[in-house]
Amino acid sequence: MFISCVPGKNDILETYSRIRDKVHKTPVMTSAAINRMSGCKIYFKCENLQKVGAFKARGATNAAFSLKSDQREKGIATHSSGNHAQALAYAAALLEIKAYVIMPRNAPAVKVNAVKSYGGQIIFCDPTLEAREKELSRIVDKTGAYFIHPYNDYDVIAGQATAAYELFSEVPDLDMIITPVGGGGLLSGTSLARNYFSIHTKVFAAEPRGAGDAYLSLQEGRIMPSEKPVTIADGLLTSLGTRTFPIIRDNVEKIILVSDEEIVEAMKLIWERMKIIVEPSASVTLAAVLKEKILFSKSKLGIILSGGNVDINKLPF
Amino acid sequence: MFISCVPGKNDILETYSRIRDKVHKTPVMTSAAINRMSGCKIYFKCENLQKVGAFKARGATNAAFSLKSDQREKGIATHSSGNHAQALAYAAALLEIKAYVIMPRNAPAVKVNAVKSYGGQIIFCDPTLEAREKELSRIVDKTGAYFIHPYNDYDVIAGQATAAYELFSEVPDLDMIITPVGGGGLLSGTSLARNYFSIHTKVFAAEPRGAGDAYLSLQEGRIMPSEKPVTIADGLLTSLGTRTFPIIRDNVEKIILVSDEEIVEAMKLIWERMKIIVEPSASVTLAAVLKEKILFSKSKLGIILSGGNVDINKLPF
Repeated sequence: MFISCVPGKNDILETYSRIRDKVHKTPVMTSAAINRMSGCKIYFKCENLQKVGAFKARGATNAAFSLKSDQREKGIATHSSGNHAQALAYAAALLEIKAYVIMPRNAPAVKVNAVKSYGGQIIFCDPTLEAREKELSRIVDKTGAYFIHPYNDYDVIAGQATAAYELFSEVPDLDMIITPVGGGGLLSGTSLARNYFSIHTKVFAAEPRGAGDAYLSLQEGRIMPSEKPVTIADGLLTSLGTRTFPIIRDNVEKIILVSDEEIVEAMKLIWERMKIIVEPSASVTLAAVLKEKILFSKSKLGIILSGGNVDINKLPF
Repeated sequence: MFISCVPGKNDILETYSRIRDKVHKTPVMTSAAINRMSGCKIYFKCENLQKVGAFKARGATNAAFSLKSDQREKGIATHSSGNHAQALAYAAALLEIKAYVIMPRNAPAVKVNAVKSYGGQIIFCDPTLEAREKELSRIVDKTGAYFIHPYNDYDVIAGQATAAYELFSEVPDLDMIITPVGGGGLLSGTSLARNYFSIHTKVFAAEPRGAGDAYLSLQEGRIMPSEKPVTIADGLLTSLGTRTFPIIRDNVEKIILVSDEEIVEAMKLIWERMKIIVEPSASVTLAAVLKEKILFSKSKLGIILSGGNVDINKLPF
């Protein structure tokens, strides 16, 4: 059942056997052109090609399937307007239970429709964190649904860890691995997978300068909340959590900040050279690698392309 | 050496062993959402993720590597502004020989740059077929370069056949397979691969209504040249050739015509649902399947996504 402390090696292996037939084993891609430009050998783990278009399918599926039948029968709930909401709706559909998603009234139609398309039930609220949390409490009280946090949850973290686990299994001897950081679910999961399955790999993260709270948190040694973040990388606006922060603090070499211009440049490069669609939040990693070429020079580097959910009618280029 | 008549089973197997370490074994993808919408089970062979972003890498590489060393030492040449030009430049770079590409003066910068990025040498000419052919003759006479036709060439056809060969090897028992048709290189190669490796699979093709010369050719029983074609699918403007037409005539069940609106709709669907970039010419197939749902209903269907080269600054949506 639930993972109650930092997931161990067996937790991640059990998680993987729980979810492996429910999510894609995503491909690992390379690009000769991008290798030339970056000066290193990059292995892209394509979680943009994951179910619901993002790694979030892993964590949400693991958390939902870890619930006992009496816990899950009344449904699951979250407040998110992003990929976790779709992932939760996806997991609920597999379990044939309800997913309640609290969304701000001003959420873009494309996100609302994505959650609906997986059968999620949307409850609108005012666009403030307070309103969202209040509405979530009300729904949980009313329905008995189980709240699954987007990242500050060990079952979710163990699920996200399986992306790096697959990458380490397919490409041994990576010198380095880099992921984006928002709330830290993917980064902390990747750190744990590194500890158990590829101990010689160094872990890095990339973060938008306009939402640099994780960078600041590492510097200050405590969680610095994200305050009025402004960035095109809309999946990376959240603050670190009490469960993700310590894992990140203890394992991550460095968080590299990048500008929105650098993010868009890297995103365009991936689209044009690799013919795959990645969202801005997934492009921060390549932006960081191109920015700090000396740091990554000649390394064998894993990049987790976190997601591909972007409104193709509103592109930044 | 050269394949001098319709490629046989062994020709295709030899071709495959010649090129398999020079091109990608592209992934086969599925989409639950698109399966629901189409009513069939589709296996997408992702040649948009191929080297140079198109299946053309297969045929050009095979043709170039089939040349004897004295034939290839003076370089290779073609007149094309599309994916074959990039593919030829790619193959020439592998062989460390020159690639001469005749292009109309008004070719889009994105295509010119793509050929240049693979090291191709571009010779501009007036934007008429006559001017192109005349300039090609001049270059071939002057340099001694070997002309490799984009599709009316058995070595090229055998190369293109390897995409379907890989698909049939990975997904047995396909009921049907569908490809786009322009000059017919991919379609004739796919037909041959079907004959030798998956005889129970029926072969279909999709063509833009604004460039419906292959449809007309099948109807008339002879090659009907493409006259003033107008379509967004800029890779499908050419006419069938003397080597591709008979193979297509003898093997293809039906060519389905689709409008540009249907092409753009299908393209958008692939981008949004599969998170991969396909060009309009690659999207005609899904457009045809969605148009003729009854024909494909409940089938196990292979679609060759032919390419992903599109100017992302000039999208039709």
